Amino acid sequence: MSGIIKVGLLGCGTVGTGVIKVLAENAEEITPKVGAQIIISRVLVRDAQKKRDLPQSISVTDNIEDILNDPEIKIVIELLGGIHPAREYMLRAMQSGKNVVTANKDVVAQFGKDMFAAAEASDVDFMFEASVGGGIPIITPLKQCLTANKLTEVIGIVNGTTNYMLTKMSEEGASYDEVLKAAQEKGYAEADPTADVGGLDAARKTAILASIAFNSRVGLDKVHVEGITKITPEDIAYAKELGYTIKLLSISRDDEKGIDVRVHPALLPQSHPLAAVRNEFNAIFVKGNAVGETMFYGRGAGQLPTASAVIADVVDVARDIVKDRFGRIRCTCYEHKNFCPIEQTVSSYYVRLLVDDQPGVLGAIAMAFGQTGVSLSAVIQKRKVKNKAEIVAVTHKVEEAKIRQAEQVLNKLSAVDKICNVIRVEEPTGQEA
Amino acid sequence: MSGIIKVGLLGCGTVGTGVIKVLAENAEEITPKVGAQIIISRVLVRDAQKKRDLPQSISVTDNIEDILNDPEIKIVIELLGGIHPAREYMLRAMQSGKNVVTANKDVVAQFGKDMFAAAEASDVDFMFEASVGGGIPIITPLKQCLTANKLTEVIGIVNGTTNYMLTKMSEEGASYDEVLKAAQEKGYAEADPTADVGGLDAARKTAILASIAFNSRVGLDKVHVEGITKITPEDIAYAKELGYTIKLLSISRDDEKGIDVRVHPALLPQSHPLAAVRNEFNAIFVKGNAVGETMFYGRGAGQLPTASAVIADVVDVARDIVKDRFGRIRCTCYEHKNFCPIEQTVSSYYVRLLVDDQPGVLGAIAMAFGQTGVSLSAVIQKRKVKNKAEIVAVTHKVEEAKIRQAEQVLNKLSAVDKICNVIRVEEPTGQEA
Repeated sequence: MSGIIKVGLLGCGTVGTGVIKVLAENAEEITPKVGAQIIISRVLVRDAQKKRDLPQSISVTDNIEDILNDPEIKIVIELLGGIHPAREYMLRAMQSGKNVVTANKDVVAQFGKDMFAAAEASDVDFMFEASVGGGIPIITPLKQCLTANKLTEVIGIVNGTTNYMLTKMSEEGASYDEVLKAAQEKGYAEADPTADVGGLDAARKTAILASIAFNSRVGLDKVHVEGITKITPEDIAYAKELGYTIKLLSISRDDEKGIDVRVHPALLPQSHPLAAVRNEFNAIFVKGNAVGETMFYGRGAGQLPTASAVIADVVDVARDIVKDRFGRIRCTCYEHKNFCPIEQTVSSYYVRLLVDDQPGVLGAIAMAFGQTGVSLSAVIQKRKVKNKAEIVAVTHKVEEAKIRQAEQVLNKLSAVDKICNVIRVEEPTGQEA
Repeated sequence: MSGIIKVGLLGCGTVGTGVIKVLAENAEEITPKVGAQIIISRVLVRDAQKKRDLPQSISVTDNIEDILNDPEIKIVIELLGGIHPAREYMLRAMQSGKNVVTANKDVVAQFGKDMFAAAEASDVDFMFEASVGGGIPIITPLKQCLTANKLTEVIGIVNGTTNYMLTKMSEEGASYDEVLKAAQEKGYAEADPTADVGGLDAARKTAILASIAFNSRVGLDKVHVEGITKITPEDIAYAKELGYTIKLLSISRDDEKGIDVRVHPALLPQSHPLAAVRNEFNAIFVKGNAVGETMFYGRGAGQLPTASAVIADVVDVARDIVKDRFGRIRCTCYEHKNFCPIEQTVSSYYVRLLVDDQPGVLGAIAMAFGQTGVSLSAVIQKRKVKNKAEIVAVTHKVEEAKIRQAEQVLNKLSAVDKICNVIRVEEPTGQEA
């Protein structure tokens, strides 16, 4: 019970350095809980010659074979990111009998099935807590703590970059371009921010969350994705006036219509706990038929929070090594559920229009909505722009297909200059606190 | 992998019935995740003759030996509550080689050590997720998901009854007696509400949380306990005016002064996420040196949420049975830390006084605080009561011992009629969302 467990680390960037640091600093916390010492013995880097401030005990290499062929290494931590060569390295590590821990949402979202199959074939563990929600425990709660439940809904803020941007836009009235620049300067957004602001990062996390929550594989291609690039300060201001906050939401639902998975900006009532999640924080709401509503909140990214999640998995694997039993919890996608097309999803909608500033236009617009079966809970004439007026309409719950029809009818009205934005409104049911 | 795992259930009250119901209703969710079917085969009740609406497959008994001597029963769920005979039954079950799952905070808080020793001696599992936070996953996150961290603080709302009462008092201006009656009628408070309103229930949960978070046994007797019985509508109204909400908090901190564990009402800034936790909901904030702040939120009590936590543990044990390896995570109290006496704890304080309504009294009071080294951030003269005036003072951070001295000095002032209430103010540091 007092042995050493050797770990190979693939990648030594921000998170990798964090993992080395936290493992060293908190060794006194970790060793007694495992019953063995966890030691990083080898690190794979791109340039082995580069000067690095690493402990002497760690040997640096740029050759993956040094790690795959080291029989003493029992756990491989993959922090390279991206599909290639991360996916191949993980598969080979498992084929070599090594347990794998990863933070790689790309691989888990697209190749989770293959990863689990490889883990099962070699009787090793495959763990990925850090792939969603940074430091927030969410994969283990879903796979372990909420197993008694039929889960019906997972709604969350899972991208820190866009949440930081929307928070700044909301609290400071800043424009999209201004906050993107600020986020890049703070290191919250990358030079190419497409994956974050376009919603792809959140979509990958959504595919992972939904696959686990609903026991059915949810491919990345099944996730309907809209980013925040079209959100303007006007939308945020009008939403606020109406009692809402705009957030980029990850939404997964499982009901009689099939699995409904999407990432898009949405208006949330200000009283909803997710509306209070600010800056780079993440939070994930999970609804189950026994537990009711639970929420998990914390830092969704960053060096140390992500290292916390990675090491939690390493500790889990190390406990399995100590007990010499692996694969307690395998892939749980044992069902093959249908998906609900986005056109059949139901929501309220916020619609902002630019129209001619003339009598009767409000009535004409209300009638156009009515024609396509969309009933309105509010139509408000907002500020004037030259000889045009801005109108904001909020609909009752309606099928997405009908909103698209309404858009077509509105576009044909001569008084309608353009439809500036259409954003879904999420009004959670049964929200009590 | 397709066997049957038989379970004996001790107690068939609200939660026990919930466990039977959820296990039956969600069998299709649970069985594939375990790789075996979990079946409750025997239930221990007080009166075996009483009519019960139970499935035919469950045999009812009033004799504990029927369960302890049944070699087919691999897991015992203990839902009797209280120390005796629950403690003895659990010990005997483990000695008979059975794994034990319990929701019993009394036994875990006071006899956790013995329970773990018995589990280790017999190489069985001992699990108690449901003992804190009802359906909220918190024990597993602490024992498993946050193992990379040195945890420094756990602050939470862990008693649903008092949170319901304080919410009603705050939102409806109702008196303590009125809301207690309403809570009893709703079934949120028991006929004898002492354990809830006096803080003992929260203290037990605090002892459990702190023991796990700080790797050091925290006995119930180490928890400083104050209930909510002295909180008046005036205190709640003045707190609100000052920007605070009053909550009954469970506070555990581990710093250079030692472990500081307490349960007491406290003023929380309205912007703090815990301030937004309403009614019977619970939430627990955990701070670690890698993860930063995380929060776990959900229903802290109730039939189905508690059943959700109990069954999660049962599934965990069942997975161990399938893999034939037990005790992956044992007692983690491997340290023996010192405790910080309540007199040495530091806090801000809200002090409400009734004084003579005469010139100079405010100055005299400020001077009395100053004399004992207590500096004030606010002194406000509130409503008049006959020829008396109510004064509310809020102090800067100060040691508890000094507040007690200040109370003595104030009590000697002839202008001071009485000190109506002294409530701690919790101003979390580094709170970002």
